[in-house]
Amino acid sequence: MTDLLRPLRAADIETWDFEADVVIAGFGIAGACAAIEAARAGTDVLVLERAGGWGGAAALAGGFIYLGGGTALQQACGFEDSVEEMTKFLTAALGPGVDEAKIDEYCQGSVAHYDWLVDAGVPFKMSYWGEPGYEPPFDDGLMYSGGENAAPFNAIAKPAPRGHVPQMSDKRTGEKGGGYMLMKPLSNTAAELGVRAEYDMRAQRLIIDVDADGVDRVVGIVAKRYGADVTVRARRGVVLATGSFAYNDDMMRRFAPRLLGKPAASVEEHDGRAIRMAQALGADLAHMDATEVAFFCDPQLFYRGILVNGRGQRFVPEDTYSGRVGQLMLLQNEGQCFLIIDEASFEEGMAGTSSSPQLKIQPRWVCESVAELEAEIGLAEGALTSTVDLYNRHAVNGQDPLLGKKTEWVKPIGGPVAAIDLRGMAGGFTLGGLLTDTDSRVIHVDGSPIPGLFAAGRCTSGLSAWGYASGVSLGDGSFFGRRAGVSAAQA
Amino acid sequence: MTDLLRPLRAADIETWDFEADVVIAGFGIAGACAAIEAARAGTDVLVLERAGGWGGAAALAGGFIYLGGGTALQQACGFEDSVEEMTKFLTAALGPGVDEAKIDEYCQGSVAHYDWLVDAGVPFKMSYWGEPGYEPPFDDGLMYSGGENAAPFNAIAKPAPRGHVPQMSDKRTGEKGGGYMLMKPLSNTAAELGVRAEYDMRAQRLIIDVDADGVDRVVGIVAKRYGADVTVRARRGVVLATGSFAYNDDMMRRFAPRLLGKPAASVEEHDGRAIRMAQALGADLAHMDATEVAFFCDPQLFYRGILVNGRGQRFVPEDTYSGRVGQLMLLQNEGQCFLIIDEASFEEGMAGTSSSPQLKIQPRWVCESVAELEAEIGLAEGALTSTVDLYNRHAVNGQDPLLGKKTEWVKPIGGPVAAIDLRGMAGGFTLGGLLTDTDSRVIHVDGSPIPGLFAAGRCTSGLSAWGYASGVSLGDGSFFGRRAGVSAAQA
Repeated sequence: MTDLLRPLRAADIETWDFEADVVIAGFGIAGACAAIEAARAGTDVLVLERAGGWGGAAALAGGFIYLGGGTALQQACGFEDSVEEMTKFLTAALGPGVDEAKIDEYCQGSVAHYDWLVDAGVPFKMSYWGEPGYEPPFDDGLMYSGGENAAPFNAIAKPAPRGHVPQMSDKRTGEKGGGYMLMKPLSNTAAELGVRAEYDMRAQRLIIDVDADGVDRVVGIVAKRYGADVTVRARRGVVLATGSFAYNDDMMRRFAPRLLGKPAASVEEHDGRAIRMAQALGADLAHMDATEVAFFCDPQLFYRGILVNGRGQRFVPEDTYSGRVGQLMLLQNEGQCFLIIDEASFEEGMAGTSSSPQLKIQPRWVCESVAELEAEIGLAEGALTSTVDLYNRHAVNGQDPLLGKKTEWVKPIGGPVAAIDLRGMAGGFTLGGLLTDTDSRVIHVDGSPIPGLFAAGRCTSGLSAWGYASGVSLGDGSFFGRRAGVSAAQA
Repeated sequence: MTDLLRPLRAADIETWDFEADVVIAGFGIAGACAAIEAARAGTDVLVLERAGGWGGAAALAGGFIYLGGGTALQQACGFEDSVEEMTKFLTAALGPGVDEAKIDEYCQGSVAHYDWLVDAGVPFKMSYWGEPGYEPPFDDGLMYSGGENAAPFNAIAKPAPRGHVPQMSDKRTGEKGGGYMLMKPLSNTAAELGVRAEYDMRAQRLIIDVDADGVDRVVGIVAKRYGADVTVRARRGVVLATGSFAYNDDMMRRFAPRLLGKPAASVEEHDGRAIRMAQALGADLAHMDATEVAFFCDPQLFYRGILVNGRGQRFVPEDTYSGRVGQLMLLQNEGQCFLIIDEASFEEGMAGTSSSPQLKIQPRWVCESVAELEAEIGLAEGALTSTVDLYNRHAVNGQDPLLGKKTEWVKPIGGPVAAIDLRGMAGGFTLGGLLTDTDSRVIHVDGSPIPGLFAAGRCTSGLSAWGYASGVSLGDGSFFGRRAGVSAAQA
C-alpha cells in the first residue's frame, strides 16, 4: 500500500535532470498564471505538466472567471458593482467558513486582475447574456453565474453579473470553448516570456534541504516520466498547481463521500497527489468536504417549474445558479430531486436558447393532474399536491413567499403536468485542499509557511468554503496562481 | 503564529524526565482502555493527562456505549440482535463514507467488548428504558440511542437497542453519571495493573528517531507541565488519545464551520493538538467535517409534535434519535427548527419522565389556529397550514407516509397550538481526525503506518463518517483504545 511520496533529501540526489529558479507542477490555470508572474519577475521558470500539453481542466471548462467590483466589461454592459457588494456576496454564497482575508484581497484586486487577463491576451466580448443557462450559448462575455440576482443573495448584496467568459467561436460549431480561449493566450504569453514546459511529467514527491535556520526547505521535485524518475531542482521555489482530488476515490471516500464516483468538470489527472505530497511535509488542510456540484438539467427548464425533493417539498428558488441547486440536492436532500413542470412551460423551456441542449431532459411521468403525478412518482399521498397548491396560491399573484423566486419566473402550474426525474443528476469536483495564505504560501500545521513551497488552484482551499459560484475556480486559480508565481520568484 | 509542534529529534534530547514502554496522552475513555491492554500485555505504561485527574470528556458524559450483536444485557432484556443487523444499521446510520473494516471488526467484537467492560468492573443493570429521552432517567442499562427503531433505519436493519449505560446512582440525586461509572472502574483497573499516571501534562510535540529502515519512528513525547517542557520516552510506542478539536476555533472554521462556537458534550481540553502533532509527521486525516450534533429539546416533547424547518416543512421523523434531528437541522436545514405541538400533547410531554427536564422548553408562540401560528412565527402564508393539514390528513389513520413516524407517536395536531423556537438549539463535538487502521496505527499519507504512533478516540476518525448514534464515541474510543494499547505493547 505504501506510495513513495515522502520527501527526498537533496543530499541524496546524485544528478539533477532539470533545473530552474521556479518550478511549477501543473500547466492549468494556476500554473500558467504563476509561470507568467514568475517570468515577469525575472526568474527562469519551468512548468512540469503530467499531460501531453498545457491546459488542464481549465482548457476544457466553460471558461467563467468570477470577477467584479466594476470591471471594464461590467461597465461596458451597464452594470454597477463595487468591491463591497462583491465581498458581501462571496462571503455569503461561498460559506460558511470562508477565508475572509482571501475574499477581501480577491475582491479588492478583481478589477486589476481583469485588466491583467486582458493584457495577457484573453479576449472578452463586451456583451451580456441574460437568459437562464449554464453559460452564454454564443460568445457573450458576461453573465450571472452564482445566483447573485436570486434569493437569498439578492437581499444580502446588490446583484451584479460577475461571470466573465473569454470570447470563443460560436459554441454551436463545437470548435473551442471559453476555457480554451483563456488558456491559449495565457500559455502563449508564458512562452513569449521564456517559460519552459516539460510534458508527460507526473509530480511524485518533493525534495527538501535544511535551510540556515535548521528548517526543511523545498528545493525541488521528483517527477515520473515514461516510467523513470526525473529530478528537478528549484533554486527559488516550487509551485503546486495540479488540481483537485475528484478522481482519487480513497480521498473522496474519506473527505467528500457524497460526490464519490461522480467526478465532473475535472480531469483524470486530478488525483490529489500534490495535496498528499505537501501533507507529507506537514502542510495543513482546509474545507476538505467542500465540493462544486453541477446539476444536470437545463436552467431553461427548471426555472420554469418547481424543484422538489424526495418528500415532494421545494428546497431552492428555482431561478438561482444551477450549481447551488446541485449542492442543495446532493448534500442536503439526499440526492433526491424532481422537476415538476406543466406542458406549456416545458415547451417554452425546450424552445429556450441554451448552451446545454443535451440537458433538456424529457419527462419520465406525464399526467393530467398533480394528484396522479404524485402517485406515479411514488410520493406520499398529498405531498406534491400540497406543495403545488401552496405554490399556485401565491403564483397567481406572481409571488413566492416560501423561497423568494422572482416574479418573472413565477407562474401557476397547470395541467397536463410532468415530472422529470433528476435523482442523482449531479457531479463535480472538490474545493478543499492545502491551506495557503494570501501570498499562496503553503502553511504548515504549526502555522508557519513551508519555505520554498507555494500552491494555488484546486489543490488548495481557495475562496470557497462550502458554497460555490461558477468562475470561482478559474478566478482564484488565476489570482492566487499569480501570487504563487510572485512569491516563488521572491523566495 | 508559529506553534512549536514539529517533532523533535531524540538525538537532541539531553535528559528524559519520564520513561515507559507505552506512553499514552490522554486519560479519557481511549487512554484508559489502551493503558489496561498495554499493561495486561506486560508492558510498563505511563499516562499523561492534561487535567488534574483521569476522566476526560468520558467521565462527564451520559455514558452510552454503543454495543450489540447479542450482548448479555440485550439478552437479559429480551432483545434479539446479530452482528449482521448491527453492521447494516451502523453502515447506514453513520455514513456516507464509513470505514467498512472498522465497522466490521467493531460489530464482530462487540459482544466480547461488553464482557471485557464488565470484567473490568463496569456495572450494568439488566433493565431496559423505552421512553423517549436522551438517556435513561434512572439506572436502567439499555436504551435505543441511534434511531434504530425509527424510519428510515427500521426498514434497513432489524432494530435492537444498543445504548448500554453503566449503572449509576439515581440521576435525580445528581451524584454521578453513567460516564463516571464507566471511567471509575476503568481507572481503578488501570491502577491495579500498575499503570502510572502523571497529571497536568499537556502533550506538545512528538519525539522521533530514525529506525533501522531509515524511517522516522516515534519514540517519545514532549509535554508542558507548569510552564516547563518535560520529555517522556516511550520505549515501544506512543498512543494519542486526547479527544476532539471542538474547542479549536481555527480548526472548526476550516473543517466544521457550522458547529463553530457551539461545543457541547466535550471539554475545553479538546483543542485538536494531537491531530496537529501527528499531521506534522505526515499523518493523514479523514472526515474532518463530521460532527455529533446534540439537539436541545426534550424528546418527550418533540416526539409528540412535528418539527419543521425555516420553510415550515417537516424534515425528520420526530420519533428518532435526537442527535439525528440535530444533525439534519444544523447541517441540512440552516439551523432552522420549530416544534409545532398542540396543548394536550405539550402537557403530556411536560409530564413525561425524562433525564433532561431542563430541555422542556416553553413555547414562544401559542395560538388558537395553525394559520395564526404561522403568521406569528413569520412563515410564508399557507406554509405551515399545508404542512399540518398534510400531517393531520394521514394522522387520523395513524399514518405518516411522508417520513414514516411510527403510529404510536402519530396524532392529529389540534388547537390550541404552540410553537417552540428551536433555531440554533444545537451543539456538539467533532468526529473527524487522524486516519487509523483497525489496529489503531496512525496512517501516513503514503499509506503506511507511522512506526511507534497509535491513536484512538475522538482525535481519530472512528466509526462515524457523518451520521451518529449515542454511544459510538465511548464505543469506538474504548474498542480501538484497547487495540491501540495492544499494538503499542507489541511495537
